[in-house]
Amino acid sequence: MAAEIICVGTELLLGDILNTNCHYLAQELAALGIPHYYQTVVGDNVARIHQVLEIAIKRSSILIFTGGLGPTPDDLTTEAIADFFQTPLEERSEVIDDIAQKFAKIGRTMSSSNRKQALLPLGADILPNPTGTAPGMIWQITSSSEPITILTFPGVPSEMHRMWQDTAIPFLKSLGWGKDVIYSKMLRFRGIGESSLAEKVNHLFDLTNPTVAPYASKGEVRLRVSAKAPSEAEAIALIEPVAQEIQEIAGLDYFGTDDESLTSVVGNLLRDRQETLAVAESCTGGGLGAMLTEVSGSSDYFRGGVIAYANEVKQSLLQVRRDDLAEFGAVSHPVAQQMALGVQKALNTNWGISITGIAGPGGGTEEKPVGLIYIGLATPDGTAKSFEYRLGSTRGRALNRHLTACNALDLLRRKILLITDS
Amino acid sequence: MAAEIICVGTELLLGDILNTNCHYLAQELAALGIPHYYQTVVGDNVARIHQVLEIAIKRSSILIFTGGLGPTPDDLTTEAIADFFQTPLEERSEVIDDIAQKFAKIGRTMSSSNRKQALLPLGADILPNPTGTAPGMIWQITSSSEPITILTFPGVPSEMHRMWQDTAIPFLKSLGWGKDVIYSKMLRFRGIGESSLAEKVNHLFDLTNPTVAPYASKGEVRLRVSAKAPSEAEAIALIEPVAQEIQEIAGLDYFGTDDESLTSVVGNLLRDRQETLAVAESCTGGGLGAMLTEVSGSSDYFRGGVIAYANEVKQSLLQVRRDDLAEFGAVSHPVAQQMALGVQKALNTNWGISITGIAGPGGGTEEKPVGLIYIGLATPDGTAKSFEYRLGSTRGRALNRHLTACNALDLLRRKILLITDS
Repeated sequence: MAAEIICVGTELLLGDILNTNCHYLAQELAALGIPHYYQTVVGDNVARIHQVLEIAIKRSSILIFTGGLGPTPDDLTTEAIADFFQTPLEERSEVIDDIAQKFAKIGRTMSSSNRKQALLPLGADILPNPTGTAPGMIWQITSSSEPITILTFPGVPSEMHRMWQDTAIPFLKSLGWGKDVIYSKMLRFRGIGESSLAEKVNHLFDLTNPTVAPYASKGEVRLRVSAKAPSEAEAIALIEPVAQEIQEIAGLDYFGTDDESLTSVVGNLLRDRQETLAVAESCTGGGLGAMLTEVSGSSDYFRGGVIAYANEVKQSLLQVRRDDLAEFGAVSHPVAQQMALGVQKALNTNWGISITGIAGPGGGTEEKPVGLIYIGLATPDGTAKSFEYRLGSTRGRALNRHLTACNALDLLRRKILLITDS
Repeated sequence: MAAEIICVGTELLLGDILNTNCHYLAQELAALGIPHYYQTVVGDNVARIHQVLEIAIKRSSILIFTGGLGPTPDDLTTEAIADFFQTPLEERSEVIDDIAQKFAKIGRTMSSSNRKQALLPLGADILPNPTGTAPGMIWQITSSSEPITILTFPGVPSEMHRMWQDTAIPFLKSLGWGKDVIYSKMLRFRGIGESSLAEKVNHLFDLTNPTVAPYASKGEVRLRVSAKAPSEAEAIALIEPVAQEIQEIAGLDYFGTDDESLTSVVGNLLRDRQETLAVAESCTGGGLGAMLTEVSGSSDYFRGGVIAYANEVKQSLLQVRRDDLAEFGAVSHPVAQQMALGVQKALNTNWGISITGIAGPGGGTEEKPVGLIYIGLATPDGTAKSFEYRLGSTRGRALNRHLTACNALDLLRRKILLITDS
């Protein structure tokens, strides 16, 4: 008894849209423990949908369709399925009422083409669509040689997700699926490469419950620890000792779990210590400030900063010495330190972070190549240190800037944790 | 003669990764004019890969595989295909040499598991992988009842793309595909909704060559105009009059084509006029500055700015009057205007843009709800105007901030164009 995902839509074949529905459903099936071995994409064409059905009913007993439920002549998933099982379509008055009401709410009248959306095969149950006009169906077909269950969803992801959560999951659970809970924790690391971390925790990759698996992500490394158990508490009990072990092995390279980002972790550290922060940005142009303020409530600790893109601004607002700019250049240790101290003073904060560098693709020289970045950190004692990074020229401007903002946050995180520890 | 995309990988069935390879290949097949009616995803399992092959060879003559070419025991696409066609695998010494060389370059020795990647079916051509270890193959099988061509690619998207561009496209063109060129222009709009724009250009949606199709995108609306013709020049000749007509209909709401972003368009306008810009940001926290500096070379016109997240910073660095902050609040017309003038003066620029608002989810009141934003614009004559936006609370903090930065750029763009026109 396996499920099969069948996505209907010529736009998928033309590459006009990315098939996120398939990804979503695959995750959901995995969470419920329902095996599935095949995914198929087919265009808006009755003969080909029939062919796909012919194949699918031989190898799967739950067929999950997305797409082709709209009001246009192209949308023919429902009629193709009904026709395949030689079952007449009947108009459901409750669907007509529901669609008419939804149109009335936005001051419009239901068009005749929408009537089509109320046609479902005789014997199929309505799968309600709270946020759109097209309902789906849950059709348990017992007349075929093997019993087949068909679920249909519209292609609009938000509508499909809501219908899946509200109706499909309870239905599948009523069939006996999803008895075990799958629970996972995503552990997040910075300052260590994926392969180095993998070597350190290699002995954990063979575990079967919980499992440990690495995930690469932009600017960080992640390990997912997942367990399957009859209850969430039991799953967590399986996960905890392994997560603990990994955190101990990783030390300061571990920064947070699940939704904890570098930004939120740094923010919470500052809030706990009732300390404030200001930033002075050159090559990131405001990106570090934007990252720090992604979190609502960041005004508790973040006061603002100076975007010192032009050298004159480094001098006028951050008191960087003209002589040092001339002697060492804007991308240098002394300028990074003075920027950090300058913004700390100008905004009257406990901490100041500065960034100056060459994000690329232009602006590099042999002496100061693309990817050379200095980050300055002014500490509460009124002194500053600076750190050099060489990111190279292959990653591109956007990623260099993102990694630099992450590096700046990570520097501050480690500095605060080391102070707290000592 | 149609193609079929077959993606192999249990991680796709588990929903661990999104199938971007399928999307990429679908777009590429469409560009070459190669019809394809089915896409299939199957796990790392020989019997199921055989089953998928059994079905595919009956309905398609070009089978494009991705995934399962790695060195681990899970990777068995090549051997499953060879086995299906009862063809022995042979070790290709040139592949062994290539892999060994790649390992040597990074100071490592090729492991014995990589030898497997040099095994290809007798008679298959190597499809070189310049950026990874696993090569693919191009195998033209004439022994089957209908001739079948099989192309295999690794699952790593960047490797696959490069192999497709370097080798697969020339091969498919040698088979006679891609004689017609498909050329498109993406026209980009801001300040008009998708449905309003669609109504204005409704008469163009029925065209067949070129075609006109709408695309929704974060913070803007797009229309793609595509034409198919024997040469790029002929395709462009078909597109131009329609693109011109759309631009005339849209007026100032049209801002650019293809890679022209609001940022680059505003940047080019400023560069042409040899004018400079500074920003004063509260709720966007540096996001507008970050957007302006996405473009290398933005130092020609962007001097920097002040992130005035705390009110004290608005006063100390931007000379916003304490009385006005108290009387009108930080989110108000007077404060937006003073911020814009303040940053224009502090950084000595021609233009100053300011942003102050409530991005949410917290911080809203009945009088000043989440989504209320003021944008100030200080013009070269030393005066400032401000503009109120009500984005509402449903979009969320990140999108509210993004839309606000876009609105600010668009205000400046329209102001400059109106000055230039008059």
